Amino acid sequence: MQSDHDSPKGTHPFDAAMRMQWLGDDRFLGHTSDAYRNMVGPYGGITAAHMLQAMLLHPQRQGDPVSLTVNYAAGVPDGAFHIDAVPVRTGGSTQHWSASMTSAVEGGEAQSAICTTALAVFGKRRDTWQHTIAQAPMLPPDDDMTPMRSTTAAPWSERYERRMLNDFEQQEARSLLKDSPARPLDFPGLASLCDAFKPWIFAIRPERTVIGTVSLNIYFHIAGDELADVGDAQLMGRSRSNVVHRGFFDQESQVWTRDGRLLATTQQTIWFKA
Amino acid sequence: MQSDHDSPKGTHPFDAAMRMQWLGDDRFLGHTSDAYRNMVGPYGGITAAHMLQAMLLHPQRQGDPVSLTVNYAAGVPDGAFHIDAVPVRTGGSTQHWSASMTSAVEGGEAQSAICTTALAVFGKRRDTWQHTIAQAPMLPPDDDMTPMRSTTAAPWSERYERRMLNDFEQQEARSLLKDSPARPLDFPGLASLCDAFKPWIFAIRPERTVIGTVSLNIYFHIAGDELADVGDAQLMGRSRSNVVHRGFFDQESQVWTRDGRLLATTQQTIWFKA
Repeated sequence: MQSDHDSPKGTHPFDAAMRMQWLGDDRFLGHTSDAYRNMVGPYGGITAAHMLQAMLLHPQRQGDPVSLTVNYAAGVPDGAFHIDAVPVRTGGSTQHWSASMTSAVEGGEAQSAICTTALAVFGKRRDTWQHTIAQAPMLPPDDDMTPMRSTTAAPWSERYERRMLNDFEQQEARSLLKDSPARPLDFPGLASLCDAFKPWIFAIRPERTVIGTVSLNIYFHIAGDELADVGDAQLMGRSRSNVVHRGFFDQESQVWTRDGRLLATTQQTIWFKA
Repeated sequence: MQSDHDSPKGTHPFDAAMRMQWLGDDRFLGHTSDAYRNMVGPYGGITAAHMLQAMLLHPQRQGDPVSLTVNYAAGVPDGAFHIDAVPVRTGGSTQHWSASMTSAVEGGEAQSAICTTALAVFGKRRDTWQHTIAQAPMLPPDDDMTPMRSTTAAPWSERYERRMLNDFEQQEARSLLKDSPARPLDFPGLASLCDAFKPWIFAIRPERTVIGTVSLNIYFHIAGDELADVGDAQLMGRSRSNVVHRGFFDQESQVWTRDGRLLATTQQTIWFKA
């Protein structure tokens, strides 16, 4: 249990969770975070953020993240982990990454077995023709939206202030999201937020359903030099599923600023027990 | 140039393209296909299919593909290539894969440099609660849809019979798609088809735009034992983009049977020159 690992008072729990040591070459040493635990093992969003953080800290990194795919191959054991983040190919406009996470708990059974894999594309953001096609979600006043329950059994849920409403006519959930405590947006923070949407299966299936994300995909639509414009503002989300089929279902979500800027689109495929 | 590599007469060009030799351990030897060339290098869909095919042929493979992410790190040189497809982790209900493609052209400059990376999750499909939330596209009779232009400069475009219409009110393209010549659906065929949608940017931007997919993500919503139900039937598609932002844009598509079964949902992030 290492969440407070070297974490001085006053440090945001997300920044404490993102602390990593570069061990040379492509290897980084990090620690799981008690503050972002799920009921069993880490919250998927924090693991996605860890994978991205290793790439961001790599001395050969060029540009900003454009796409990130994180596959959850097995539970992440509590404690120290290694991430090997490899810049596979660097071109004129993009840089391609491959990364894997292994437990670094000495003597742990799972030591050196890969628990998480990731691919990413970084890109040089240039000024080009721009156009937003998707429509921002229409939301009622905050007070008309249901605060989402957080639970100490899943500490990560207390790290977000979330309100939501289920629109059964449009078959989508709309939401308001914010880090708790507030924190200026950065790429790992945005990646983590992309896993904070309530799966639509909970809205449409009366039975309690045990689920687990197997793959998370994120497309970033904001450049590094634009992050400061967003700061720690409350964000809007919308989320829908297309199909539940023989043990798996998908979920698609969008993250918007309140003034109508689309920051990220994200998809998951999720295993469920039934 | 190896597209007709050992291809006997009467073999469908897609099946000829998918032919691969297992070299032992995790390594496969394949060849690029003239029949599925794009203007420069292979059509992205055929490369996605190649990555999946190596996993499908691997002796340790368990279950059916559930998710596939293919990142196009660099152009694939014409000729022989190696795919290293590694079963990273096999659990009770899922199997996680990581794969990379390198040129195997002897003496080629790019030999042993990774040109394509992929991650995949395979899963055991079980009978569970099922539910389709997304709505199938409404299409006019075939004859009211515009046949999509194919060009010998991009031979892959002649391998699909496609009709489409742009719905500017809904901001989406709807389409009819079929292999040409007809071919019974399998997972590599479905993966390849997921890259056959016309980018929406061509509909909304008057200037000619040079594009290149950097990352393709596919979620499969059909199990292997259900593929025969689909056979070589014409399929329906819908496709939309959310945002064009500083050098990149996204595209989301769905593949449906004509009787309303959702076979795949797919997303891309695409670089463009402007």
